[in-house]
Amino acid sequence: MDRFMRTAIEEAKQGLLEGGIPIGSVLVKDGEIIGRGHNKRVQENNPIAHAEIDCLVNSGRVGKYSGTTLYSTLMPCYLCAGAIVQFRIKKIVVGESETFSGAKEFMELHGVEIIDLNIEECKQLMKDFIQNNPELWNEDIGELQ
Amino acid sequence: MDRFMRTAIEEAKQGLLEGGIPIGSVLVKDGEIIGRGHNKRVQENNPIAHAEIDCLVNSGRVGKYSGTTLYSTLMPCYLCAGAIVQFRIKKIVVGESETFSGAKEFMELHGVEIIDLNIEECKQLMKDFIQNNPELWNEDIGELQ
Repeated sequence: MDRFMRTAIEEAKQGLLEGGIPIGSVLVKDGEIIGRGHNKRVQENNPIAHAEIDCLVNSGRVGKYSGTTLYSTLMPCYLCAGAIVQFRIKKIVVGESETFSGAKEFMELHGVEIIDLNIEECKQLMKDFIQNNPELWNEDIGELQ
Repeated sequence: MDRFMRTAIEEAKQGLLEGGIPIGSVLVKDGEIIGRGHNKRVQENNPIAHAEIDCLVNSGRVGKYSGTTLYSTLMPCYLCAGAIVQFRIKKIVVGESETFSGAKEFMELHGVEIIDLNIEECKQLMKDFIQNNPELWNEDIGELQ
């Protein structure tokens, strides 16, 4: 596993320590990390504070996103995929897509290259969290019953 | 024009007064405004602070978005459309789509009802802004050259 995904997993674990949803994200430009973040919806009571969004906020106004790669421990949902498509981020690396299949097809349709590392550690973080907090997770992805 | 779009236009004008991009948004649930916002990317140096995103943040953790309608003075881009689709907001009302066609087809594909009021005032706000600030606008929609 490369150091960027390792950093994204550190972010996910930091979120868990804070009582939040364990999803982390890192934005890399030309081989350097320019921003990192994790899901803070619970911590900040903010429905759009998904990991990828928090990472993009923390990266500041990049301007042109050419040459950037977004890392996430989990396949992005439509909110985060919409940001990726709108900002023309052309490559993403995800930790897994087994616990949530996300908006993969939508991103591919818009020419985003997706690399799924299928990492056991990422899956276990989400499986444990979803099992212990099903309502928080369903709220995160707009699937509260 | 109904009072909700009037409020969204007030938000857009407030943004312009602050030196920002004049796009406003309102979230309505069961006939009541539960949140409002405007584009704050310039003001907050935050690339994801689009009007609809700011409005969703200000609306707090709604949980279930059934029965909500999102108003925006401009057709939503993929970032904001992604939020609408992910959170299952089933109806949006926009002020115009002439200065920016946005992600209309993507939302329709996901069953979002879109009402375009085609309001001259909304178009004029954007035309004037884009003419005076082409780089700021292109940055907003990820089209910096």
